[in-house]
Order: sequence, then structure tokens, then C-alpha cells
Amino acid sequence: MYVLLVYDVKQARVGKMLKLCRRYLNWIQNSVFEGDITEVKLKELLANAHGFLDLDEDSVLIFKSRSQHWLEKQVVGQERNRLDTFL
Amino acid sequence: MYVLLVYDVKQARVGKMLKLCRRYLNWIQNSVFEGDITEVKLKELLANAHGFLDLDEDSVLIFKSRSQHWLEKQVVGQERNRLDTFL
Repeated sequence: MYVLLVYDVKQARVGKMLKLCRRYLNWIQNSVFEGDITEVKLKELLANAHGFLDLDEDSVLIFKSRSQHWLEKQVVGQERNRLDTFL
Repeated sequence: MYVLLVYDVKQARVGKMLKLCRRYLNWIQNSVFEGDITEVKLKELLANAHGFLDLDEDSVLIFKSRSQHWLEKQVVGQERNRLDTFL
């Protein structure tokens, strides 16, 4: 399935969250990832995130779609992922 | 149509962008908005944004779907929009 993941986590945990998400999805903007992923792999990602996130402070939104086909993406301004390799 | 909008703009323009997006969509997380909006209204939002954004620095991602039906939303941790009225 296609997944869009957006997180808003405290600065202290941003690095860990970024690194974790990169193992499963493609970075498209500051704190936004997308990609094709199985339910099992998504559960794995979230189980890992639960290990260090503070759910009283942090927030992760996940939008799932059976296929990317149902979503049209429009980019205004910079496409951040072009810089991905430099970060 | 259903729209998910995520922005990553320089601090100096965050306030303006937040205020603008709130006029058209529902805030769901730091720099993330969603809602039902027409193409015309979305164009209006973006035309307004173009008035103050710096497209060399800022980034706005828009995901459009004919209906929210195609997207399943999962929230992990805090649902920011519960705080919306206090901000």
C-alpha cells in the first residue's frame, strides 16, 4: 500500500525518527515521508518508533491508500528530496 | 475534493502560511492541513501563498484525492487539532 507519514516530534527525537523512517520510506519534505510499504513493515516501523517516542508530546500521522493512484501530488516551491543525498 | 497540505517554510513566513491555510483547511498537525476544498479555492489559497512565499526556499506539498474515502488516517500519539482552539 501507499503511505504518507508526517511526524511532529520533539527536537531531541527528530534524528532518531528521521533515521528510522528512512529505513522504510522515502523522504519528501522536512518530517514528511512517502512510499510503498506492507502492513507488516509499517507495524515494524511504528513498533520501533514506540521505543523512543513520547506519545504525550509527539505526533505521527499516517495516511494509507491502497495505491498511490488515488492521490495526485502537487509540489509548490522546492522539492526537498532532490537534496536528500546531501543531508 | 479532499486535500492534504504540508508546508515547510522559513520561520519568518510560518505565521502567514498558518493563517492563510486556516482560512481554507483544517489544521491537523504542525504544518499539516487537511480538508475538502474545490479546485478554485485551492488555486486561490496557492495564489495567496505565492504572494509571500519564497519558492527558492519554501516547499508546499499538496496531495489531492477525489474523496477522503481513499485514504485511511492513523494517528500515533497526540492529535494536535484538539489543541487548535487554544493556539
